[in-house]
Amino acid sequence: MSFVAIVYFSGYGHTAKQADAVAEGVKAAGSELRVYRISDTGDLPEGTLEELSGASAIIYGSPTYMGSVAWQFKKFADASSKVWVTQGWKNKLAAGFTNSASVSGDKCATIAALWTLAMQHGQIWIGTGLLPANLKASGPADVNWSSGFGGAHAISPADATVDEAPRSGDLETARLLGLRVAEFAKKLG
Amino acid sequence: MSFVAIVYFSGYGHTAKQADAVAEGVKAAGSELRVYRISDTGDLPEGTLEELSGASAIIYGSPTYMGSVAWQFKKFADASSKVWVTQGWKNKLAAGFTNSASVSGDKCATIAALWTLAMQHGQIWIGTGLLPANLKASGPADVNWSSGFGGAHAISPADATVDEAPRSGDLETARLLGLRVAEFAKKLG
Amino acid sequence: MSFVAIVYFSGYGHTAKQADAVAEGVKAAGSELRVYRISDTGDLPEGTLEELSGASAIIYGSPTYMGSVAWQFKKFADASSKVWVTQGWKNKLAAGFTNSASVSGDKCATIAALWTLAMQHGQIWIGTGLLPANLKASGPADVNWSSGFGGAHAISPADATVDEAPRSGDLETARLLGLRVAEFAKKLG
Amino acid sequence: MSFVAIVYFSGYGHTAKQADAVAEGVKAAGSELRVYRISDTGDLPEGTLEELSGASAIIYGSPTYMGSVAWQFKKFADASSKVWVTQGWKNKLAAGFTNSASVSGDKCATIAALWTLAMQHGQIWIGTGLLPANLKASGPADVNWSSGFGGAHAISPADATVDEAPRSGDLETARLLGLRVAEFAKKLG
Repeated sequence: MSFVAIVYFSGYGHTAKQADAVAEGVKAAGSELRVYRISDTGDLPEGTLEELSGASAIIYGSPTYMGSVAWQFKKFADASSKVWVTQGWKNKLAAGFTNSASVSGDKCATIAALWTLAMQHGQIWIGTGLLPANLKASGPADVNWSSGFGGAHAISPADATVDEAPRSGDLETARLLGLRVAEFAKKLG
Repeated sequence: MSFVAIVYFSGYGHTAKQADAVAEGVKAAGSELRVYRISDTGDLPEGTLEELSGASAIIYGSPTYMGSVAWQFKKFADASSKVWVTQGWKNKLAAGFTNSASVSGDKCATIAALWTLAMQHGQIWIGTGLLPANLKASGPADVNWSSGFGGAHAISPADATVDEAPRSGDLETARLLGLRVAEFAKKLG
Repeated sequence: MSFVAIVYFSGYGHTAKQADAVAEGVKAAGSELRVYRISDTGDLPEGTLEELSGASAIIYGSPTYMGSVAWQFKKFADASSKVWVTQGWKNKLAAGFTNSASVSGDKCATIAALWTLAMQHGQIWIGTGLLPANLKASGPADVNWSSGFGGAHAISPADATVDEAPRSGDLETARLLGLRVAEFAKKLG
Repeated sequence: MSFVAIVYFSGYGHTAKQADAVAEGVKAAGSELRVYRISDTGDLPEGTLEELSGASAIIYGSPTYMGSVAWQFKKFADASSKVWVTQGWKNKLAAGFTNSASVSGDKCATIAALWTLAMQHGQIWIGTGLLPANLKASGPADVNWSSGFGGAHAISPADATVDEAPRSGDLETARLLGLRVAEFAKKLG
């Protein structure tokens, strides 16, 4: 039986919290879920790349560091070139999420980098499918106030603990992304 | 009954030739096809945006001019904000193609811009799903020598007539993209 | 005598207000300033491209519409290919600014598109040179809360009048960009 | 006395050959040059970040792997966040180069990622300032046939040895980038 995979790196725990919200969404769709957290040295357990070949969807996540994915995530991406040569992930669904301290910054560059990776793998990309919350009264409690389209954005202010951020709107956005991916994965099944 | 749409602009005919190849691919899949060529003033017949809401997939095409889509294509993209507010194209498949004179240039920026547009619309993006032809002996007669992943690239040297370029490898790449999109559009129903 | 140019489009006046702030910064540096506002049909007075060849710096501005510059701005960019063939703007300083309703959205894609245009022209690109305001207590009154690095971002909520937005932090960010560009333009002579 | 720095990673030697050509250009300008090759584990000698703070220009180089810089380069970029917090590289000139097997691929995404990094650091970005060689008769022996604008592109076919690629046109393009950067670095003094 197929499953939805989340592969992510988290430096301080905020992106991990975002990943947890994505995971909730996947489970809410009734899909089997497998979560792979990349280690601080950019590694995953032996055999993970092969295992991912059994997934129907792979959701990529990384904090935005210096304008793109963390190097630990990139180490995983580079390792996946082993699968690339045989296009082993071709036609699997793909999606992405990222977290950083600034409201905007270069988060959209990180999401574009995740999309580029997925395109090299011949995957099908699905974004948030959400309109932004962009009125004067909008704020961090609103779904997609962080306004990601290609993928889910989250904002964790530089002085916010993991308890404090990402905030409710970002977590719900992440949850909705997980749900959306899982539902499409069934369709493509 | 649903259909696959190609919406494109062509300045000198090379991108139109690429669009024709994409169209062949769509037809090879047995899908209904509708082609919309944006005029030199960036316009489409009245009612086109609404008509596109009946498509199962929209394939976007534009030459790369000054590092992104032609302004005529962007005028169409901006006009589509009318559909965006109701997310009328949500969940439709999307893909893209581009042509320019240089072997690389900023074609990957144009494809990324088409993807960004599709993400705003809540669409699902599908790339070429092709490995590149990148050996010493590879050349313009090879599929994906032009090496696009997020979308189909084509190269038309600045002094090449429409008869001369895009060349066979790029046309076959475009055809394969049309075929791939049409087949996935059936799956997504 | 050389001058700093601002070339921009504004749909509803918010980007024009941002452009005014950039202009203030240029003037604060004691530099001569010329401002070119692209019309609603994407046009500029005859001879503008040639006139721009006399500038020491060109600052590009556009709202972010559907994930990139407005088509009117792109029409100007495409027209500038006339200058591109002779690299008439080579080595001039370049910078950019953009405004949109969402806090993040695809503003960084718009700035990247402006940079791509400048690179085609052989220009030298200068960003904001600002750290972001990204603490829990940060808000729209803070410089670079909108967190642009490659260029100045501004946020004008969808229901905000031109009197209301862009807000003070974004206007000061824009002013600082104008000042920074003008000072570097002097250095490059 | 100030110097021009080249910081790069090379996996198989092709990017190193490109870096050598950039270095030749810097030396041709009569500038002092320091070259930093990132190790296979993504490391540089202790104190390198601080040393780079004495450079007038930093030229970044990496192969394009899976659509962006190699993870080893990204590890360096992430480590540079230590300098970012104090904006220690602010106003230094920056430029970039990349090599990959395909003629286009996602090289322009890699160059954009290097630019994004430089923008976070508040640097000034300079591209190739070269028109492309894009006629029917153009080929790998021509300057900028590889057609990079934001940075220097090089093509090393997947079966080409380091002796065989990058080829003469790409090496000359790289040399010209080094020369251009060094000359501007003097101007910015």
